Amino acid sequence: MTKTDIATRVHNHTWKLDPIVRSLLDTDFYKLLMLQMIWKLHPRVHAKFTLINRTTSVRLADEIDEQELRDQLDYVRSLRLSKKELIWLAGNSFYGRAQIFEPEFLAWLSNLQLPEYQLSKRDGQYELTFAGSWMETTLWEIPALAIINELRSRAAMRSLGYFTLDVLYARAKAKMWSKVERLRELPGLRISDFGTRRRHSFLWQRWCVEALKEGVGPAFTGTSNVLLAMDSDLEAVGTNAHELPMVAAALARNDEELAAAPYKVLKDWNRLYGGNLLIVLPDAFGTASFLDHAPEWVADWTGFRPDSAPPIEGGEKIIEWWKKMGRDPRQKLLIFSDGLDVDAIIDTYRHFEGRVRMSFGWGTNLTNDFSGCAPHEIAGLKPISIVCKVSEANGHPAVKLSDNPRKATGDAKEVERYIKFFGSRDRVEQAVLV
Amino acid sequence: MTKTDIATRVHNHTWKLDPIVRSLLDTDFYKLLMLQMIWKLHPRVHAKFTLINRTTSVRLADEIDEQELRDQLDYVRSLRLSKKELIWLAGNSFYGRAQIFEPEFLAWLSNLQLPEYQLSKRDGQYELTFAGSWMETTLWEIPALAIINELRSRAAMRSLGYFTLDVLYARAKAKMWSKVERLRELPGLRISDFGTRRRHSFLWQRWCVEALKEGVGPAFTGTSNVLLAMDSDLEAVGTNAHELPMVAAALARNDEELAAAPYKVLKDWNRLYGGNLLIVLPDAFGTASFLDHAPEWVADWTGFRPDSAPPIEGGEKIIEWWKKMGRDPRQKLLIFSDGLDVDAIIDTYRHFEGRVRMSFGWGTNLTNDFSGCAPHEIAGLKPISIVCKVSEANGHPAVKLSDNPRKATGDAKEVERYIKFFGSRDRVEQAVLV
Repeated sequence: MTKTDIATRVHNHTWKLDPIVRSLLDTDFYKLLMLQMIWKLHPRVHAKFTLINRTTSVRLADEIDEQELRDQLDYVRSLRLSKKELIWLAGNSFYGRAQIFEPEFLAWLSNLQLPEYQLSKRDGQYELTFAGSWMETTLWEIPALAIINELRSRAAMRSLGYFTLDVLYARAKAKMWSKVERLRELPGLRISDFGTRRRHSFLWQRWCVEALKEGVGPAFTGTSNVLLAMDSDLEAVGTNAHELPMVAAALARNDEELAAAPYKVLKDWNRLYGGNLLIVLPDAFGTASFLDHAPEWVADWTGFRPDSAPPIEGGEKIIEWWKKMGRDPRQKLLIFSDGLDVDAIIDTYRHFEGRVRMSFGWGTNLTNDFSGCAPHEIAGLKPISIVCKVSEANGHPAVKLSDNPRKATGDAKEVERYIKFFGSRDRVEQAVLV
Repeated sequence: MTKTDIATRVHNHTWKLDPIVRSLLDTDFYKLLMLQMIWKLHPRVHAKFTLINRTTSVRLADEIDEQELRDQLDYVRSLRLSKKELIWLAGNSFYGRAQIFEPEFLAWLSNLQLPEYQLSKRDGQYELTFAGSWMETTLWEIPALAIINELRSRAAMRSLGYFTLDVLYARAKAKMWSKVERLRELPGLRISDFGTRRRHSFLWQRWCVEALKEGVGPAFTGTSNVLLAMDSDLEAVGTNAHELPMVAAALARNDEELAAAPYKVLKDWNRLYGGNLLIVLPDAFGTASFLDHAPEWVADWTGFRPDSAPPIEGGEKIIEWWKKMGRDPRQKLLIFSDGLDVDAIIDTYRHFEGRVRMSFGWGTNLTNDFSGCAPHEIAGLKPISIVCKVSEANGHPAVKLSDNPRKATGDAKEVERYIKFFGSRDRVEQAVLV
């Protein structure tokens, strides 16, 4: 006898929306740490975030239906933190620290609704921006990206039959598992999931996280995704991002404040968090300039996250600087997180083995690698390089230079001004694939 | 909200038996064709079938629980053909022929229950035999083998967690699909599923059949599994097997009848079926001897199925014989079915391309290839060479020589006698993997 549950069948064929982001915790952990800092120190700053598709050959507005996009974004605006989520944020330890979130912050967070978005089309691309209080707009970055990416993969798979989908996911799982087997060869590896924003889909990210957990065991140190961390009892990982120095620089009233901006945010961070959370992200306005002018105390921080220089060259520069500052790199931590795949992870691991502590934040190529998995080539399954960056703070343009000119964001004239100001030594152009 | 269907959950956790063979049609088509011949011509012959595990290093009685085996065999004894199945057998065309089964035969079949089995353990192996009317015992061959093989793979997977199973099947699907992609390169290929008896499981066979159907399109000419053919509207394929000449030889009362036995069964077959069903299986007592003494009319048959000689050498011998008999091999068909995998299929196809019509019956390596798929090596997932052969007819020992001495079956003294009688030219020892 064939058994079909009628209610399930009817439900599956009549649903209005399959929400992509179903919880405000389906975001990166560092957004919450930064949000608490913004809430505490910059509650009146106004910040605008802008979606930027660097892969301009992909015309997102042609691939993704506008109404579907609006429905998904609207759904996120209907979300509030649940009691269970708030209790977990209050009761869980993060980076070994209890009560990292203040009760007043959590009380404020419990009422948070994501603000309105502005959406239009231009030249086959979406212009999607979020303007308002920095405390509110900052949380749009991750869900906006996750929605765009998953809507794109859904569109790419719409015409596939059941069997083709079955083979697609079987191959993707087999591929993922062969990566796991290679990573298992690296003793003492530390690797975590940074793949929320550019994931193929939520369910696929969850599978990949489960695969890493099963496959590499204690080498898997956690996920940046707060919801997955909560649901699977994993460590939530991540510290801070470029938006902090970008806003600080945009708000600088003179050259002195501009020069001090990258270090001022670190000072604030140290006051709030300290401990294992002291990870420097040095490349907002170029790592060379950052190191040249960094005060002595920056060398006391736990580690650096070089995010746009080639990993080996970038890591060597930082090690050199630690040595110059009289620190032992073997006590220090480098977190690699830029466009990694297994080959880059293995090469980098082998290169620095024994010379510095290392950790890898594995993103797009963990949660969105379907290359070679479809029975025929499907362009829409190839991940694109898409970001959602702060573009204005209190009306001033916000800019990122990065160590790779192709990853620079912001108004062109303002980028020019920053390059003149911070210099461009060691900035190396590299293709940005993801 | 997590939705769990309570009835399904409770059912899944309390079921008594997950039957492996759920229909008497879950068997090879040639068993039904042969059965009709037995019913018509040899209704009073008594035949005993015996399970033979050639992979003696695998101790089946240690791997498979006896009670589980009895439960599965008992379940098959509870089966009867359903009305739908009988109507389909009566109404469907096989090999382009309507009403291949006589109404009287189907009426008899509708009441058929499989007879009792004899099961005991000895030296870590099961002694499993089926004794009784040939018309009834013959149908035990396929379900008995399918049950042993699936119970063995279930036992091998019992300790695996959900995730490991997920990776196992994902890899097996990816592996199967890469075979499909290679087969797709062969224009005019004709390939069918012969994998029922040694399948990993029924569901996996169904998936593999579906994969071939989707992947190679019209090159997929059908399945030997009658149930899958009915359910998926595929051609049911297969003609005759060794048990016909084996029983005929066992019943021979003198040397003259023994020498004539292999050809007498073909004559009977021709009277009953004719047309596309005229496929010679020449190796029961050695192909060389068979060809040496074959009457002229054997060369008029559609084709040969060399089943134990190396495919290229075996095929060449038959082509040579056709030429000697003045027939054009390009009008003739060779069906290869012995331990094939993709490499052998491609090599054989390339070798004979344009010189003869070819068809491939793909068995164990289609439906039971999990090599390299488990996250760690699992011995119980490696297929074994197991058969269920007629061992006695009316109390006389039944024997098969085959072109590969390792595939010979039957009483050792009797095998010696047959070798002396039929000769052993061209018999080549080859490892029997499956």
